[in-house]
Amino acid sequence: MAEPPDLHAHTASLPLQGASDAPTHGQPRVSVLEVHVEFGHCDPAGIVWYPNFYEWFDAASHRLAERCGAGLHTLRAQGYVGLPLMQTGSTYHRPVSFGDDVRVLSQVSGFERKSMRVEHRVMRGDELMLEGFEVRFLGEPHPDHPGRLRAAIIPADFKARFGFVA
Amino acid sequence: MAEPPDLHAHTASLPLQGASDAPTHGQPRVSVLEVHVEFGHCDPAGIVWYPNFYEWFDAASHRLAERCGAGLHTLRAQGYVGLPLMQTGSTYHRPVSFGDDVRVLSQVSGFERKSMRVEHRVMRGDELMLEGFEVRFLGEPHPDHPGRLRAAIIPADFKARFGFVA
Amino acid sequence: MAEPPDLHAHTASLPLQGASDAPTHGQPRVSVLEVHVEFGHCDPAGIVWYPNFYEWFDAASHRLAERCGAGLHTLRAQGYVGLPLMQTGSTYHRPVSFGDDVRVLSQVSGFERKSMRVEHRVMRGDELMLEGFEVRFLGEPHPDHPGRLRAAIIPADFKARFGFVA
Amino acid sequence: MAEPPDLHAHTASLPLQGASDAPTHGQPRVSVLEVHVEFGHCDPAGIVWYPNFYEWFDAASHRLAERCGAGLHTLRAQGYVGLPLMQTGSTYHRPVSFGDDVRVLSQVSGFERKSMRVEHRVMRGDELMLEGFEVRFLGEPHPDHPGRLRAAIIPADFKARFGFVA
Repeated sequence: MAEPPDLHAHTASLPLQGASDAPTHGQPRVSVLEVHVEFGHCDPAGIVWYPNFYEWFDAASHRLAERCGAGLHTLRAQGYVGLPLMQTGSTYHRPVSFGDDVRVLSQVSGFERKSMRVEHRVMRGDELMLEGFEVRFLGEPHPDHPGRLRAAIIPADFKARFGFVA
Repeated sequence: MAEPPDLHAHTASLPLQGASDAPTHGQPRVSVLEVHVEFGHCDPAGIVWYPNFYEWFDAASHRLAERCGAGLHTLRAQGYVGLPLMQTGSTYHRPVSFGDDVRVLSQVSGFERKSMRVEHRVMRGDELMLEGFEVRFLGEPHPDHPGRLRAAIIPADFKARFGFVA
Repeated sequence: MAEPPDLHAHTASLPLQGASDAPTHGQPRVSVLEVHVEFGHCDPAGIVWYPNFYEWFDAASHRLAERCGAGLHTLRAQGYVGLPLMQTGSTYHRPVSFGDDVRVLSQVSGFERKSMRVEHRVMRGDELMLEGFEVRFLGEPHPDHPGRLRAAIIPADFKARFGFVA
Repeated sequence: MAEPPDLHAHTASLPLQGASDAPTHGQPRVSVLEVHVEFGHCDPAGIVWYPNFYEWFDAASHRLAERCGAGLHTLRAQGYVGLPLMQTGSTYHRPVSFGDDVRVLSQVSGFERKSMRVEHRVMRGDELMLEGFEVRFLGEPHPDHPGRLRAAIIPADFKARFGFVA
């Protein structure tokens, strides 16, 4: 696969502007999702069809949230709706092929007042194959519009679960 | 669904930096993919699970390329391998639900020396539901590494097919 | 692709045993779902990866039910939960390839007391590429177990919507 | 979910007619694929959307073949094309939900002259949630039609890899 030299906006590795929260240490901040690349993940070119990477990212974010005590069932019990998406993106470095065993490493890289950024790196051994991100918000029922959501102000204890302190 | 006010990087609508090629007029530059949102596109929240949007984008790019005379079969007949991905991204404005009829409007927004940027807008009637982009390169066999690809320098006639002149 | 001569159980074309209901005529009994085979539908062998056919079947059944006045929103307004699956199957006659335009023709072939059988044929022009079926039931909330479903006795007016009379 | 009492054709558990080959013992005949049910596997009803089960079956068959020394790379090295599908089917006993951990147990249940039948059971703990099957053939290039396949006569040593002797 090509390694095109001239573009690579490196969206995924940009620091989150305005993210002043510093992560603490000793918290379960990084989760790992192991994926065996199946025949059906691959396209006629024999490599992973890229929407599948986003399927992995979504699964990895659920895994991360679960590990940090912020899984969907927990959030719902607290009156939240979940962690819907505002923005996603991915930068592809090397093609991933049928039979590869990869790991998706996921962590929250920062919080805004009403959103969080999850970053994912897909590794084959020590090689970075691709990286991606998801900006999510903490959804709560809109007080004025039944059936609609709005982005909640992220509470400090929610950030703390992912290893961030105010 | 929420309309979070404070983030929205608007990646998809940013002008492509360094894209000096001006589009001509009268070319078949915009393609439309109509999508009926199926039950199976939707997640337990009752809205489209976001990796599906990328499936639509990929289909829409193939449709656009086909319409512009640069479909996969044509490219292969010219010695190219296709239009692999370097980067993708999407910004979500409103949730898309089961039963919605949407249109994916796609166009090339600019070329770099060795890449192109395709932009997609998903509309429900006049409402912009989400927007996304794909940065693709024109793949050719690597002359020194059999079985690998590299990014070709985009020829002028390729740009012209999408409505761009040097 | 092979045309293996010796197996083909023809599950999909078997008459439904015990289906004594005769279809009337002049009803909107057959629906058509048009599918353009996308790059992403195809596997490394360059043909449609078979789980996609079931995605089409599910979409086609929703389309059929909608056309017959038994779409999901209508069913829910009547206290039903939907049309969950009991059994599905498919027999593959010819491979379907990237770029093919196919039609999925769907109809109910018979009712049991508490189930219905939907049959699907995937045609490329006049060629039958594959055929499949789904056995579905009309789900209603279980009176004794909150949160669970049970199969309702199919009412005569439901059958009539699909062109069957008692 | 309902347990409809009156249909259940038990396709998946029917003995393969004409399958006279007796399995030997001590061979690695059963493979296990562990699946954690992701949010994205589930539909608006909150349960696994059924085409996903076939995705698991396909992955499980590749896993089984790999374990038995008949993986895709091995087959191709021997001049075969792979194990394309002739027929598939599934019977659903209980709904599978977001967060469930299930195992897909897979084995070859019999061979015909030019086909094999793979059976899959999806277990949550000791509960059988659903069962399915795939009839596959051993594809080889058609000698008279370049670019087409035909079903090879299954050689004895191929059967032996899955624990069957003539």
